[in-house]
Amino acid sequence: MPAASSAEVFLTPPALLEHWQGHRRLTRRVIEAFPDDRFTTYAVGGMRPFGAMAVELLRMAVPTLKGVLTGTWDEGMSNDLRPKQEILRLWDESTKELDALWPQIPAARFAETLNAFGQWKMRGSDLILYLVDNEIHHRGQGYVYLRSLGVEPPAFWERG
Amino acid sequence: MPAASSAEVFLTPPALLEHWQGHRRLTRRVIEAFPDDRFTTYAVGGMRPFGAMAVELLRMAVPTLKGVLTGTWDEGMSNDLRPKQEILRLWDESTKELDALWPQIPAARFAETLNAFGQWKMRGSDLILYLVDNEIHHRGQGYVYLRSLGVEPPAFWERG
Repeated sequence: MPAASSAEVFLTPPALLEHWQGHRRLTRRVIEAFPDDRFTTYAVGGMRPFGAMAVELLRMAVPTLKGVLTGTWDEGMSNDLRPKQEILRLWDESTKELDALWPQIPAARFAETLNAFGQWKMRGSDLILYLVDNEIHHRGQGYVYLRSLGVEPPAFWERG
Repeated sequence: MPAASSAEVFLTPPALLEHWQGHRRLTRRVIEAFPDDRFTTYAVGGMRPFGAMAVELLRMAVPTLKGVLTGTWDEGMSNDLRPKQEILRLWDESTKELDALWPQIPAARFAETLNAFGQWKMRGSDLILYLVDNEIHHRGQGYVYLRSLGVEPPAFWERG
């Protein structure tokens, strides 16, 4: 069997966006599953509440894609906690912004080494994967918070 | 700016393996970080101990790649809990097996719809991403277990 060469494709840019937006739909359901008053207050093991993690995810997604596209790395909204309904509204805004930004990024950018926010020298694809991985990582923590609150989390494998 | 076409590359097959093995090195450090006796017994919120999640990850990784390569979907080892040192040994064996299997998979397979283990009809790339995502998801849960045990987890961004 022939060895896969580095010129071959594992994932195309449109497939990565589809994959990420599927994860983002699941994360949205996890946000929704929290009791309103626990979203910004409840945590396990001295960690942050899920509401703080959701703010982190929002502050990373659109600002990073804007940086990858334009080379200008601006921090997004403040780090302040926000009520669940406001986070859901911001989440939906980000969904549209990501859909609009992504097809504008030239595919060559994913193979370039970028200096994201002046601090992280990473290949473009690694930077984007970091966004997705960080979301999955914190969402997994949100599952534990929900379970320990007695709330059944949404199914991990459903992304529609 | 030109739109990215679906013929373009976000990630090559060798880059995906490198990405996954980086995650697997981090997961190995999370396994190591558990106190031996808590690895198979401790959990939060009525969930499984991290030792059970590690068995799941091992049972999915190599058997899935073998299926993608050969079309024969055999379950791997049993679902039984095992002591931490045995899991670490099995983890290192799987690392070598994944490195050996991966370059044999023709890149075209990642775009095909597969029927994994006779139950999951998915595109090859989605199936592989599911393995990685499921590992990140459960490892994030392991971080909460460690924090609630008073153990500092390894840094999420270190993959070397």
